[in-house]
Amino acid sequence: MSAELRINLGALKRNYKFLDKQSAPSCETACPVKANAYGLGADRCAPALYEVGARSFFVANIEEAIDLRKNLTADDAQIYVLGGMSTAPKDVRFYMHHKIIPVINSPEEIQKAQEMERFPVALHFDTAMSRLGFTAQEAERLYADPEPLKELDIRLVISHFSSSEEALNPVNDLQIKLFTEIIERTKAHCPDARYSLANSGGVFLDSKPHFDLLRPGIALYGGNPSSSCAKNPMEGCVNLDVPVLQVKAVKKGEGAGYNATYIFEKDSDVAILSVGYADGLMRTLSNKGVFYWRGYPLPVRGRISMDLTICDLSAVPENEYPVRGDMVEIIGKYQNVDDLASAAGTIPYEILTSLGHRYKRIYR
Amino acid sequence: MSAELRINLGALKRNYKFLDKQSAPSCETACPVKANAYGLGADRCAPALYEVGARSFFVANIEEAIDLRKNLTADDAQIYVLGGMSTAPKDVRFYMHHKIIPVINSPEEIQKAQEMERFPVALHFDTAMSRLGFTAQEAERLYADPEPLKELDIRLVISHFSSSEEALNPVNDLQIKLFTEIIERTKAHCPDARYSLANSGGVFLDSKPHFDLLRPGIALYGGNPSSSCAKNPMEGCVNLDVPVLQVKAVKKGEGAGYNATYIFEKDSDVAILSVGYADGLMRTLSNKGVFYWRGYPLPVRGRISMDLTICDLSAVPENEYPVRGDMVEIIGKYQNVDDLASAAGTIPYEILTSLGHRYKRIYR
Repeated sequence: MSAELRINLGALKRNYKFLDKQSAPSCETACPVKANAYGLGADRCAPALYEVGARSFFVANIEEAIDLRKNLTADDAQIYVLGGMSTAPKDVRFYMHHKIIPVINSPEEIQKAQEMERFPVALHFDTAMSRLGFTAQEAERLYADPEPLKELDIRLVISHFSSSEEALNPVNDLQIKLFTEIIERTKAHCPDARYSLANSGGVFLDSKPHFDLLRPGIALYGGNPSSSCAKNPMEGCVNLDVPVLQVKAVKKGEGAGYNATYIFEKDSDVAILSVGYADGLMRTLSNKGVFYWRGYPLPVRGRISMDLTICDLSAVPENEYPVRGDMVEIIGKYQNVDDLASAAGTIPYEILTSLGHRYKRIYR
Repeated sequence: MSAELRINLGALKRNYKFLDKQSAPSCETACPVKANAYGLGADRCAPALYEVGARSFFVANIEEAIDLRKNLTADDAQIYVLGGMSTAPKDVRFYMHHKIIPVINSPEEIQKAQEMERFPVALHFDTAMSRLGFTAQEAERLYADPEPLKELDIRLVISHFSSSEEALNPVNDLQIKLFTEIIERTKAHCPDARYSLANSGGVFLDSKPHFDLLRPGIALYGGNPSSSCAKNPMEGCVNLDVPVLQVKAVKKGEGAGYNATYIFEKDSDVAILSVGYADGLMRTLSNKGVFYWRGYPLPVRGRISMDLTICDLSAVPENEYPVRGDMVEIIGKYQNVDDLASAAGTIPYEILTSLGHRYKRIYR
């Protein structure tokens, strides 16, 4: 009896096609598959996305790129590494051989790249994140002396939105303006480069800052991309069901779980589920999460422990109680990833990437 | 360049020996190795613990037991499954063949066990958790009709402390009293059973409720077992170091990370680290965590993102700045697992079990 994480590759493919339709045909839709495809399994998700037309894939580091290439062998599938380039010469040959494209984030990396054989790279300009990428000052120096750009085989120039899921946040327009300037000041030196700014939220901004390539991550995996979408337009890709280990009676006044952070107000029946924070069911869901049995809500009582969670059966008619081995829904028909993230006080991204390795993973 | 999780098996062994010394020689010290040995790798930790004398190991479910048995082949190593027994006949033969002992938690499971060939089992009584195990009412029925107990080959009887890390919490004495009653009322029917109540906190309670077997988890892996230990007596087993991807300047007034939840109050330099919540670095550390470079504190600025974290270099003299590829300490000499858990608003258990799978794991 183990928990089941079901991943719907059909829904993933439909999400890809839906996202791709949001932009002009000339604009490519790429797939962020970093962090093991946001926890869903890059080995299965990337080939499924390739089947429906995806050709550009983004990962975080070279180790992820190497793993991904094993499952994405087609010559026209390009893999970009957001964390930048490794500088050992063997890695450069490796990049070329496996068509892995490092995203260069700093003047130091440009200098290293110049010292090497010419090979495809991407460039990343930081517009409002203070994270990876060229700062405004570093960019100015590059515009003043564009020689290094001409020496590189630049295929893509990117920046990254900081708040694009907030449709009305003025920083979006500022970033679009800054990125437009970057295009104007680099395009003469990067004749083969395409330009990309939009993550999931960016795809749905009214001003359509799509440029040449979209990089929607969370939307692809079913999360709501934007505050401008009153109803999440994406299809959920994940079902998580966990088995009941025991159904039992508890008395009024008894405590639930470690340190008795919940005290039963009346005699109650509870179900003990085989799932805990070691499975990525975050401890912040203690006394807050709600799971579902045949549509009846089962609120979490007490602290979630490492392998076990206590749920209250008060809302379930006694003749419909689950028994040992029955599967309770955590993510699925009655609760999506956004709902669960909200109960846990975090974002759906963290829910997905936390999904543990004790689940039986079933792809359909 | 990838993050490194170094696991010190020597420290783990020393912790085992230290814990084993806390009880009388007749009391065995068992090892909870569920959730992949609290995230440290059961395949390496369990054999190391066996080497220093551990003979009883606890896991959460049958899948973990099967995995563990591959790395713990000695005939005298016993594996207990806390989640109870599977009821398919083939599993029962499997238990016997592989010396895996299910912990029976309910009358229903007793009944199933009675229908089968006699094989070693454990029994779990719930004293104050409302989690797995016989309730007081179910126990009363068992005492009134002990026939089922006599038919089983019961090797171990357990309960579990709810608050033993709080040395002065009166629930500890209540649980000890309840467990002592359980012993008195079962021992005539379970002639081969040993009795076990103490988890890490229980080992260090003044009343020494050690009975026949200790089950210290978090202490084994270096967490502070008890509020009664002013200084954590355990040795840390984990070092986590992550590489710097970029060092860059940011301007006064610029925001850090998604949604600019931190605004720089002065022109500053930051290091972008190759680690994020997809690596188990919990998002609750956003604007709260502090990492270390040569002993200098590097506070986290802005939100932790999936693969990246921004740290402030203000405390570091400029001539000692790290460069791309240098490793920054998250857990180690300057910060232990308890400190990091406290900054994240959780417990060291969740920190350890969340440690991601993108790290290079190095055992020494």
